Amino acid sequence: MPGNLIDWQSLEEKTIIPGFHGKVAHSANMTFVLWRIDAGAVLPEHAHLHEQVVQVFEGEMELTIDGEVNKTFAGSMAVIPSRARHSAKALTACRVMDVFYPIREDYRPGGKPLIAIAAEQS
Amino acid sequence: MPGNLIDWQSLEEKTIIPGFHGKVAHSANMTFVLWRIDAGAVLPEHAHLHEQVVQVFEGEMELTIDGEVNKTFAGSMAVIPSRARHSAKALTACRVMDVFYPIREDYRPGGKPLIAIAAEQS
Repeated sequence: MPGNLIDWQSLEEKTIIPGFHGKVAHSANMTFVLWRIDAGAVLPEHAHLHEQVVQVFEGEMELTIDGEVNKTFAGSMAVIPSRARHSAKALTACRVMDVFYPIREDYRPGGKPLIAIAAEQS
Repeated sequence: MPGNLIDWQSLEEKTIIPGFHGKVAHSANMTFVLWRIDAGAVLPEHAHLHEQVVQVFEGEMELTIDGEVNKTFAGSMAVIPSRARHSAKALTACRVMDVFYPIREDYRPGGKPLIAIAAEQS
């Protein structure tokens, strides 16, 4: 097809940080990550220029954005603004989809870690 | 929260075209539409500048992009490039999420129909 039809089942899952197992797909402008997150897994605080929208399909996650703690739940959508500091803790096992704009170049095959890109842009 | 936590269940569903019942949420850069689509519903061919990514949660949909027919399925993601002509037919009842970049201004409250925006930009 002129666009792209992706079967999420066929994509390889990678443990990107401990407890966070993700499959990554890119469109022309956005990056999509389908996560399987272990109960208790913690994503340390960080920030990036990308706007990030989190669709929670299963489970509960504590999501802290610029110091405010929010409890996400299945059927919720959380918006993390560009450059907002954020961290996460999975209160239960979760299934989540992140949508990033612009593309997470660091999530492309062979992509540089985000910290290296940030250093180039600062 | 500094961002936004949205409960999809709390959003109003609107029948945007016959058989296509959608709930709409916007982030700073993207528009998200959670669709409940009736079996047999048809979306006539159209095009827009927005890139559109379709996450199929349930059901089967025939998605024609620039004349090529594709059969999407639960767990698939279809990418419709900016300005590509596309149409859809729900082969079964479907649950689907569309993600658009940039924002669908026509889906904001009081937004002008897309055709009016296109006329302004042409």
